[in-house]
Amino acid sequence: MDRPYLLFLGDVADQLAAKTAQGVVHWRRDWCFGQLRLPGCAADLGIEDVTIDQAKAAGVRTLLVGVANSGGFLPDHWVETITGAMAAGMDVASGLHVRLEDVPAIAEAAQRHGSRLFDVRHPTRTFETGKGIKREGLRLLTVGTDCSVGKMYTSLALEQELKQRGRKATFRATGQTGIFIAGEGVSVDAVVADFISGSVEWLSPANDPDHWDLIEGQGSLFHPAFAGVSLGLLHGAQPDAIVLCHEPTRTYMRGLKHQPLPDLRACLEANLEAARLTNPDVRAVGVSVNTSLVGKDARGALIADIEAELGLPTVDPFVEGVGRIVDAL
Amino acid sequence: MDRPYLLFLGDVADQLAAKTAQGVVHWRRDWCFGQLRLPGCAADLGIEDVTIDQAKAAGVRTLLVGVANSGGFLPDHWVETITGAMAAGMDVASGLHVRLEDVPAIAEAAQRHGSRLFDVRHPTRTFETGKGIKREGLRLLTVGTDCSVGKMYTSLALEQELKQRGRKATFRATGQTGIFIAGEGVSVDAVVADFISGSVEWLSPANDPDHWDLIEGQGSLFHPAFAGVSLGLLHGAQPDAIVLCHEPTRTYMRGLKHQPLPDLRACLEANLEAARLTNPDVRAVGVSVNTSLVGKDARGALIADIEAELGLPTVDPFVEGVGRIVDAL
Repeated sequence: MDRPYLLFLGDVADQLAAKTAQGVVHWRRDWCFGQLRLPGCAADLGIEDVTIDQAKAAGVRTLLVGVANSGGFLPDHWVETITGAMAAGMDVASGLHVRLEDVPAIAEAAQRHGSRLFDVRHPTRTFETGKGIKREGLRLLTVGTDCSVGKMYTSLALEQELKQRGRKATFRATGQTGIFIAGEGVSVDAVVADFISGSVEWLSPANDPDHWDLIEGQGSLFHPAFAGVSLGLLHGAQPDAIVLCHEPTRTYMRGLKHQPLPDLRACLEANLEAARLTNPDVRAVGVSVNTSLVGKDARGALIADIEAELGLPTVDPFVEGVGRIVDAL
Repeated sequence: MDRPYLLFLGDVADQLAAKTAQGVVHWRRDWCFGQLRLPGCAADLGIEDVTIDQAKAAGVRTLLVGVANSGGFLPDHWVETITGAMAAGMDVASGLHVRLEDVPAIAEAAQRHGSRLFDVRHPTRTFETGKGIKREGLRLLTVGTDCSVGKMYTSLALEQELKQRGRKATFRATGQTGIFIAGEGVSVDAVVADFISGSVEWLSPANDPDHWDLIEGQGSLFHPAFAGVSLGLLHGAQPDAIVLCHEPTRTYMRGLKHQPLPDLRACLEANLEAARLTNPDVRAVGVSVNTSLVGKDARGALIADIEAELGLPTVDPFVEGVGRIVDAL
């Protein structure tokens, strides 16, 4: 996807619905020319409100529909803005469940204006099955005790820290928000099951021996719904290093009130054991804890406890950054 | 898929290409009215050659394209036979990679004659994500050291043995040959990654407390390409019992000359450990060894060695049957 982006929020009802667009602004502020909101929009990215004409004049290349709409559909009254962006020469990228090309007015406008449509939830290409052959270059994968515990954030923080230290590093996106942030990637959970690991081999190809891929993990080996995705991702990534991500206030697996969270050490060991199939030299290099729901007084002791238990540098990347994990790399 | 079946072999070049149809004849002889072969066909299922008219008169309901064609496509000169079967009132089921509905003449004939088209490699419905909630009924899953080591054969042999003993048992198919044999099922490796375990929960729903589902495993937790499928299948199956399947002459994982086979005990333990996530009471009940490539003199000692090593009833289901494993159930 070409940049700069114009972030379209429609008229979503709350800030949470714009979480994807917010992630793009947080990590790629300089790719974002402005936001475009319809009357009644309750979300605000804290960047300039602009029109399609202003965006066109500034050379914006892609209109990004970075909202999660309840039900994933595209409201009819958003279509005019989207076709207007194409008339102004932009491509359109969407993270909605519905495919842009399945909306007739959008497909027709794309044809007429020669615009490209990116539906980042849906893989647009086929993959080979995984080979498991070691590729040159270094790879780090974030793994988790559960879904939504900070794997993408941690991967991006590691990329940033490595780059600031002058190291070669590339964030590799495996989910929709990550794909907007990277400008490319694979929605691994939407790939046909036979090709999970193959798609990740494609996503993180051979590279310079001193280049780090920071691969965004998905799900958890201990999530009854998504562990297959997590294992295929782990095998395809062939990680040299893994970072365990955790949200300490979570008492059950996301969406499954009967399923307890795994023990941290058991989770780490299971990931290392499975990873050895395609990289016998894999090692754990750190723990990333999302303490946003932990009281200020409690968080220091909590992180110290985990660090003592697992013997690994433990940080909240949002609070103290990931410098200590990069030191361990 | 309704039965009886008429098995269409086209003009395939060797017996191996008709392996799927052979499996159907082996396990469901009474569902198979006959075979239909074009001039030059080199495969023979050992059942009567019949015409479409004879099949129609006998009440055949489904023409089954049970061959693996190199490349998976459908030769043009097979189309006339397939549309002829539809004109005679039959549905058509295919295990080819190409979808029947993507062949215009076939799609058009299906429309005209009101025939149903089954592409068993491609799931025709959507699934929910896995829930991991325990379902009533008993489940056995065959797991393997590798792909193609006898998981389907073992599952079917177990179903047969249980039924002969008057027990309630249902084979649950997860691959194309199995789906023809069961008349229904899910090609699990073709499901979108997010829904692997959910599709298996759907495939083996709650049942009588004394009813056994015999679920066909796929791949191996130790295959770098397909372990994600195997793990999702394991979690969705929630097995009470697993049977480990093995082919002792295999020296590397199917298709990957650099990847050694796992140790039997390590493979069994990894499957049990992962299965405990959705069924803490899972246990191993037997080992199924395909000794077809082992010399007659060597096979007895080989099976005895495995039995001694793992402490589980060990059989070649093709030679001595699975009675000892069912005893252990």
